[in-house]
Amino acid sequence: MRDKEQNIMENGRLRKQLDFIVEADKEKRIERITHITGHIRPENDAEHAWHMALMTYLLAEYSDEPIDIAKTMAMCLIHDIVEIDAGDTYAYDEEGKKTQAEREAKAADRIYGLLPEDQNIALRSLFEEFEERKTPEARFARLMDNLQPLLLNVENGGGDWTSHHVKAEQVKRRNEHNAESSKALAEFVLHTIDEQKRLGRLE
Amino acid sequence: MRDKEQNIMENGRLRKQLDFIVEADKEKRIERITHITGHIRPENDAEHAWHMALMTYLLAEYSDEPIDIAKTMAMCLIHDIVEIDAGDTYAYDEEGKKTQAEREAKAADRIYGLLPEDQNIALRSLFEEFEERKTPEARFARLMDNLQPLLLNVENGGGDWTSHHVKAEQVKRRNEHNAESSKALAEFVLHTIDEQKRLGRLE
Repeated sequence: MRDKEQNIMENGRLRKQLDFIVEADKEKRIERITHITGHIRPENDAEHAWHMALMTYLLAEYSDEPIDIAKTMAMCLIHDIVEIDAGDTYAYDEEGKKTQAEREAKAADRIYGLLPEDQNIALRSLFEEFEERKTPEARFARLMDNLQPLLLNVENGGGDWTSHHVKAEQVKRRNEHNAESSKALAEFVLHTIDEQKRLGRLE
Repeated sequence: MRDKEQNIMENGRLRKQLDFIVEADKEKRIERITHITGHIRPENDAEHAWHMALMTYLLAEYSDEPIDIAKTMAMCLIHDIVEIDAGDTYAYDEEGKKTQAEREAKAADRIYGLLPEDQNIALRSLFEEFEERKTPEARFARLMDNLQPLLLNVENGGGDWTSHHVKAEQVKRRNEHNAESSKALAEFVLHTIDEQKRLGRLE
């Protein structure tokens, strides 16, 4: 053990990991458009990621494909870390979305680059997998990324949808891939969007 | 799939899961004593749990015992949910700690009780496992629970320690079980406490 510990300090591996962990703390400063329940204040990225990972653990049974739960939770936890540099881009901000990928790739270089090389590669790959939505884990994590703010907006009486004049069709478009991961949750989301429109909370 | 979806709605399983998920949002309102980096504002429980789960994913290699990473991450994500009813008890608040267990057990009954019975049992058991520190996963999650605020306090120049007159011996006592999970991280923590005392950040 003594050898292992000396080695950790000498090659700086632990130092790099802790530097990343401390840098990641800044995610708590990145505000989203969506508000926490009670519409008390905007949610931040760290809270959003915590909520998505918790949802993954509880709702994994609805995935129509087998998923690696630890991997999916990790994907949820890290997917917004790039926003420390690139900022949050609202799902319905069409202008901001044009430059989003470039801003986020640059941020990934710097922030994941703080880690030891193997973990830099692993987390960068996890982040890109999430973005590309090509694996069962990525499809489920993306579904959580859509479902989580929907639940908050419903609980808040449509608050952020109303103030941003969001249309039911826009929310449906954002959610169009849900059924590739979970038909049950996809149906729940569509049913909820229709209901929220009927209640006047979506245009 | 259609049958599965109807079944979900009919037996209310998904509704119960979502009710718990929306209730858990209130963790974002529970402030801790520890401040986020930059000493900008107190951290909340959801952010703290997110950070611990991320740390678990990155630092699991230092556990001297094999651990189930998904289980350990889930433990981190849910360990403070009881504080929605029971409030946060500062690690160095000896009076508050006398009633902590009773307050938290009552809260667990109500909050985990929102879930379907099987998940109520599973999460309650995960929470108790964390508290009892008897498994490798619980030992590692408890280590994360100690290491996370230590990193923030170091980054913030000892801010919350100084304002609460925390003694190095108190932090060492809180961290006395670390070596049962990871000798390397335990040694890092002890080294850091001594260094912080030398810098006058701990009494």
